[in-house]
Amino acid sequence: MSSDRIRLASLQSKIKSAEEAASLIKDGMTVGMSGFTRAGEAKAVPLALVERAKKEPVHITLITGASLGNDLDKLMTEAGVLARRMPFQADATLRKAINAGKVMFIDQHLSHTMEMMRCGQLKKPNVTIVEAVAITEEGYIVPSTSVGNSANLVEFADAVIVEINSTHSTNLEGLHDIYVPAARPGRGPIPLINPDDRIGTPYIKVDPAKIAAIVLCDIPDSPSTILPPDDETQAIADHLKDFFLAEVAAGRLPNSLAPLQVGIGTIANAVTSGFLNSPFTDLVQYSEVLQDSTFELMDAGKLKFASASSMTLSEECGARVYGNIEKYKDKLVLRPQEISNHPELIRRLGIIGINTALEFDIYGNVNSTHVGGTKMMNGIGGSGDFARNAQIGIFVTKSLAKDGAISSVVPMVGHVDHTEHDVDVVVTEQGLADLRGLAPRERARLIIDKCVHPSYRDAMNDYFERACARGGQTPHIIEEALSWHVNLEKNGHMLKK
Amino acid sequence: MSSDRIRLASLQSKIKSAEEAASLIKDGMTVGMSGFTRAGEAKAVPLALVERAKKEPVHITLITGASLGNDLDKLMTEAGVLARRMPFQADATLRKAINAGKVMFIDQHLSHTMEMMRCGQLKKPNVTIVEAVAITEEGYIVPSTSVGNSANLVEFADAVIVEINSTHSTNLEGLHDIYVPAARPGRGPIPLINPDDRIGTPYIKVDPAKIAAIVLCDIPDSPSTILPPDDETQAIADHLKDFFLAEVAAGRLPNSLAPLQVGIGTIANAVTSGFLNSPFTDLVQYSEVLQDSTFELMDAGKLKFASASSMTLSEECGARVYGNIEKYKDKLVLRPQEISNHPELIRRLGIIGINTALEFDIYGNVNSTHVGGTKMMNGIGGSGDFARNAQIGIFVTKSLAKDGAISSVVPMVGHVDHTEHDVDVVVTEQGLADLRGLAPRERARLIIDKCVHPSYRDAMNDYFERACARGGQTPHIIEEALSWHVNLEKNGHMLKK
Repeated sequence: MSSDRIRLASLQSKIKSAEEAASLIKDGMTVGMSGFTRAGEAKAVPLALVERAKKEPVHITLITGASLGNDLDKLMTEAGVLARRMPFQADATLRKAINAGKVMFIDQHLSHTMEMMRCGQLKKPNVTIVEAVAITEEGYIVPSTSVGNSANLVEFADAVIVEINSTHSTNLEGLHDIYVPAARPGRGPIPLINPDDRIGTPYIKVDPAKIAAIVLCDIPDSPSTILPPDDETQAIADHLKDFFLAEVAAGRLPNSLAPLQVGIGTIANAVTSGFLNSPFTDLVQYSEVLQDSTFELMDAGKLKFASASSMTLSEECGARVYGNIEKYKDKLVLRPQEISNHPELIRRLGIIGINTALEFDIYGNVNSTHVGGTKMMNGIGGSGDFARNAQIGIFVTKSLAKDGAISSVVPMVGHVDHTEHDVDVVVTEQGLADLRGLAPRERARLIIDKCVHPSYRDAMNDYFERACARGGQTPHIIEEALSWHVNLEKNGHMLKK
Repeated sequence: MSSDRIRLASLQSKIKSAEEAASLIKDGMTVGMSGFTRAGEAKAVPLALVERAKKEPVHITLITGASLGNDLDKLMTEAGVLARRMPFQADATLRKAINAGKVMFIDQHLSHTMEMMRCGQLKKPNVTIVEAVAITEEGYIVPSTSVGNSANLVEFADAVIVEINSTHSTNLEGLHDIYVPAARPGRGPIPLINPDDRIGTPYIKVDPAKIAAIVLCDIPDSPSTILPPDDETQAIADHLKDFFLAEVAAGRLPNSLAPLQVGIGTIANAVTSGFLNSPFTDLVQYSEVLQDSTFELMDAGKLKFASASSMTLSEECGARVYGNIEKYKDKLVLRPQEISNHPELIRRLGIIGINTALEFDIYGNVNSTHVGGTKMMNGIGGSGDFARNAQIGIFVTKSLAKDGAISSVVPMVGHVDHTEHDVDVVVTEQGLADLRGLAPRERARLIIDKCVHPSYRDAMNDYFERACARGGQTPHIIEEALSWHVNLEKNGHMLKK
């Protein structure tokens, strides 16, 4: 291995095959792994583990930053490797196993997992596998395209496996800012005051003696799978732009707005792209994942800095960004997800948080995770970390799904991830409802008028009026509150009784 | 007025009758007021406003710290004074008006209201009325038995009315620590590292020219109405004590535990008293309200310091504490509720948060506010501020209510204030379920076994088993999920179909 990738010479002897490294992982172990939304996950060792599991039983608890690329969650599920999984996933095969009760999935706020592990509330990893672009002279680990929970998982593990991935340029070194909060009691403030502050080190510190194996890998990150904006995502982006224009006009926000967090996915990407044709300038992102739209805004001179925990780019955008990383490096930082999503910092910085809802109800409660109230989609991710402490907590969704069989606005959500206390603004392609300072009955009136699709509006008005006649702070006809979900399950359409 | 109560001589001329001061409040105004859980609310001026409202219409938006004593919410409701009310209340008459849709009630996290007002998302008060024990040489305001939102409401108001209450000893001066976060962007960390740190001033700063009236008042705070522990609250306290003993034995907590937040009410008071007969020492409270039990623990040498936003004591305990305030003063501090409940500090300090649930479900979602899913009880208060960011978020309730017609553990809560992501431990007199690191199906098994009353356990097992047969991360029979609430409403018992 060239000495610029493993600069502490004594570690050269730790180079092993993926199979040898995977043999360190025993049945029943807790395993930490790098990886956050298809970026920077370890690849060769989990694939070797999958191969081994075809021959002998290996069941592990897997703790990552967030979701993984390269179909790893799919392959590990099929091989029966995953007994327990946290804190997030986004894979169709794993999802099916979770909903069948075959894999225990612990769906957590992304800022919580490492805090719980630090104070002994979660089992620490026996082995942690992290992807790196290099190991420094001191034996420290330079992460690749995500930081996620890697720094903590390395700190807490008994043994560490490093995958040196040659598909990432060594120029990524210097992009990361690793800061790990101290144990409690006695912890001080996190000294980050501006989104572009650097408060840590550009590498993950580790006792080199803990590095049990180094594996060379040349499998690239999976590219993102974002769809281009359509009419509806464009309408959502436009409603939000109008909202921010009004906030600036009212003197509540400056023309640079406030640090933006935007969730992952097609709608979120369209919303971010929407800022391209806006009068806002000097925008800043303080987010958890950067998508293509971040670099569109940066290239257009709209966005001056972006902080996140990972970068998940399309093939085209990835080539452009990673091929010219020196051009972007002083405008970017990747942090541990505990820091990108930390309540202390989200509140201090006054973040505007924009996340996607699966459905919301007429009172502004949001379901981000459970289809039909029971079946897991992906997980809450960082949406709660941001919405709870944001200056403005915004949720977006298209008003209809499944060709109109589903209204994304319902009388009562089938599962609550964000309560009305944490939700300030909801948006569909129909319009935007600004819920700040409103009582539940006022929220309902606004949401029905602004966000519900016309094909569901009469039914919703009928429900709300009959509920109000019964009374209550949050009027409901309790025996009908989930009837739209029941109709859908039984008759394939929310209004078919 | 004696010059030790109004020490800036030029303000003596501002002394007015309560009626004169109340005349500053016009129909349609937004009014800020001191007061947090029956402690330190302005009294004479709102009573004068009630009298005036009997002759002419006065409808206001009233923003306080939390609930009020002296039946003020009742009297203002009856007189039609309250058009809008936030962020908390605990009055039976007001509750009825809220549930009838006559008063718009905005139920907020107690740490959020002033942050929203600061950035212009809530209307600022035309007038703020605060109770004080004195006005300093500089014209600054020394609060009484609560701080609540008073400092901010004074800062944001066009005009300020001060009620000097002679029933409070001037010895309260020095008890308070007023720190107000700066506007964003550019805000720095809140420099509080230990629960007993003092980071502000012992008074509320104000431009004396903004003080429009000073009213002399001799109406005392209402005493608290806590009931003594019964067998069930004692059992809850015992389960918690056993839990903490195990945490200490496992090395997850020291023998002084971690700073404790305990909610208001009879169960919470019993839980705190439960520490009296425990081996834990050098306990510290970082809470929002102090009740009698705090002083029991302090007198017994168990508790070395208590930080909160208000003190709500029984007549007997109040006499003992306020009669000997110098004895307690170096062990006590009262802060703005924005600081007592601040996410930055709750996470940094590693608070153990113990709050009362109205009901919780088999997956650990908690309803703190809505009876039958629709009717407001009091409000979320600070329970969400604490549970979300606590080191351990604990909810307690008796397993039965209304002579067994209600199970406080249900298949699905009728309203969600705290999602399973934020709830670590649930306790009834039946037992304690430690949910940390568990997937929903595992949580359900434990909650049913440990917390559900035996008279509901078979029905709950039946529901859960049938739900699991349908599948899902959070298995539910969606058409039955709220049927216990429907049964109660229709037939007076949760299991009567």
